[in-house]
Amino acid sequence: MYEPDPTTDLEEISETECLELLEGHQIGRIALIVENQPLIFPVNYGISHRIVTFRTAHGTKLSYAPGSNVAFEIDDYEPSTGVGWSVLVQGVAVDSTRALDDVSWTARGASPQPLAPGVRIHRLAIRPTIITGRRFTVGG
Amino acid sequence: MYEPDPTTDLEEISETECLELLEGHQIGRIALIVENQPLIFPVNYGISHRIVTFRTAHGTKLSYAPGSNVAFEIDDYEPSTGVGWSVLVQGVAVDSTRALDDVSWTARGASPQPLAPGVRIHRLAIRPTIITGRRFTVGG
Repeated sequence: MYEPDPTTDLEEISETECLELLEGHQIGRIALIVENQPLIFPVNYGISHRIVTFRTAHGTKLSYAPGSNVAFEIDDYEPSTGVGWSVLVQGVAVDSTRALDDVSWTARGASPQPLAPGVRIHRLAIRPTIITGRRFTVGG
Repeated sequence: MYEPDPTTDLEEISETECLELLEGHQIGRIALIVENQPLIFPVNYGISHRIVTFRTAHGTKLSYAPGSNVAFEIDDYEPSTGVGWSVLVQGVAVDSTRALDDVSWTARGASPQPLAPGVRIHRLAIRPTIITGRRFTVGG
């Protein structure tokens, strides 16, 4: 599990503020493992009650993510101040298209628009194990 | 290995253009696997001859990345047009701080500034296996 590094992280961001940042953005990135190779895909997401969710068609994400550990990340960087931040959600992906568990019900309450064209009839959600964030400066 | 999905990807980006995009940006994200959990960290990177490199202190990245498969990603999204793009580098991380292989020599020729404060005496590089990119639109 990721532990913040006091020698490189400027400031930890509380989970409460992480959730506010997640609620204030729309585009993030999901990392998943395919045959021991991590991959990163940008997705247009929604969040409701700590559950990050996004729509997807048949493809790599739907084939490999459900039931597996995934990471979801958002970040931003302001060149004029040199300050950046990132929020990282670690958890397990759930195919919540039709499932009746609590995560899936919550996921269907959020409404992300898909990021790429095409039919996206499936919805993936992330059952979070830990949500962390940090601020940093470039250079320093 | 990731295969572009024709039903969701608007347009593939050639490796040549992927490299131009990588050379034109400074902030990306590395995904690595820690105990079967993918993690994503923003990094300030440099690139030289297809080798993405960044500096890091002792910590999660240095402990887990060298010798392992990693992914590196950059992306951007223009809200006014709804068009986004992403570039994904898949490969193996190399601790190129002092190593004498070709990747490490090349990595030391690039000069990324570290993204977070603190001492960063180590340099990680990515020996790429495949570099892919895609354009997409939000909604569609």
